[in-house]
Amino acid sequence: MKELFGSPGKASGLVLRIGQCLFAAASIVVMASATGFSSTTAFCYLIASMGLQVLWSFGLACLDIHALRLKKDVQNQILVSLFVVGDWVTAILSLAGASSSAGVMVLFVRDTDICKVERLETQLSCNMFQISIALAFISWFLLAISSYVMFWLLASV
Amino acid sequence: MKELFGSPGKASGLVLRIGQCLFAAASIVVMASATGFSSTTAFCYLIASMGLQVLWSFGLACLDIHALRLKKDVQNQILVSLFVVGDWVTAILSLAGASSSAGVMVLFVRDTDICKVERLETQLSCNMFQISIALAFISWFLLAISSYVMFWLLASV
Repeated sequence: MKELFGSPGKASGLVLRIGQCLFAAASIVVMASATGFSSTTAFCYLIASMGLQVLWSFGLACLDIHALRLKKDVQNQILVSLFVVGDWVTAILSLAGASSSAGVMVLFVRDTDICKVERLETQLSCNMFQISIALAFISWFLLAISSYVMFWLLASV
Repeated sequence: MKELFGSPGKASGLVLRIGQCLFAAASIVVMASATGFSSTTAFCYLIASMGLQVLWSFGLACLDIHALRLKKDVQNQILVSLFVVGDWVTAILSLAGASSSAGVMVLFVRDTDICKVERLETQLSCNMFQISIALAFISWFLLAISSYVMFWLLASV
């Protein structure tokens, strides 16, 4: 297999995985600490999809560390196929979660006055929601880079 | 280049493109004929992203027809690179549009009673919105298949 930026068992791959993991975890923490998120299904779904991404990226980060320490080659066809499927499923779910939350957020901020008028009544932390969604998009972007690298590796065997 | 299901200049590729084009166009028509869509930014964005997808898929369908009629080979490296970039940008925008609309729709239907209570007052055609979003997801799915085939073709050169 080729040597690509971000491929599994490389330092660049490990950095990407840790980045995905951290941003997804930060997104969950910010969203979960915002008041009133549980009344919107899209925000709950964002937490679920980011949770899946944390688990997946953390697992692959551990595998990268293991491969780096023992100088093992983890780039065999079966493993990479598995990574490709997992990466793509996680990436699609993450993008769907981030987009659906962003759609709801735009509705709250621009289309209606929920964030401006009812802030004191319904206690919606609109700023926290927005930060969480931004972190989710960054996390998805890093995962998308990994996904493309994996797919390229698999296809170029 | 390899002969794959759905590759450009093949009948299967043409069928995929026509499917994408039709479902995206149907999604636009259903959304645009629903009353009250323009008050939600996510629904307007869905129309924009589906419009882009119609243009893109229609263009590639024409190219496929041209290649099929003249029995030309359109699978050179530069053309396929162009198709990959266009396909992926369109696919990501389509998924984002469909997901954000779906997030808003779930908010309308499950989290609030906007669709049940205010139907007569605000005139929201919730059923039409749902049909349009479902069509958008089908259209995105067909585009995703094309995107993967294109990426595979490019990587396996």
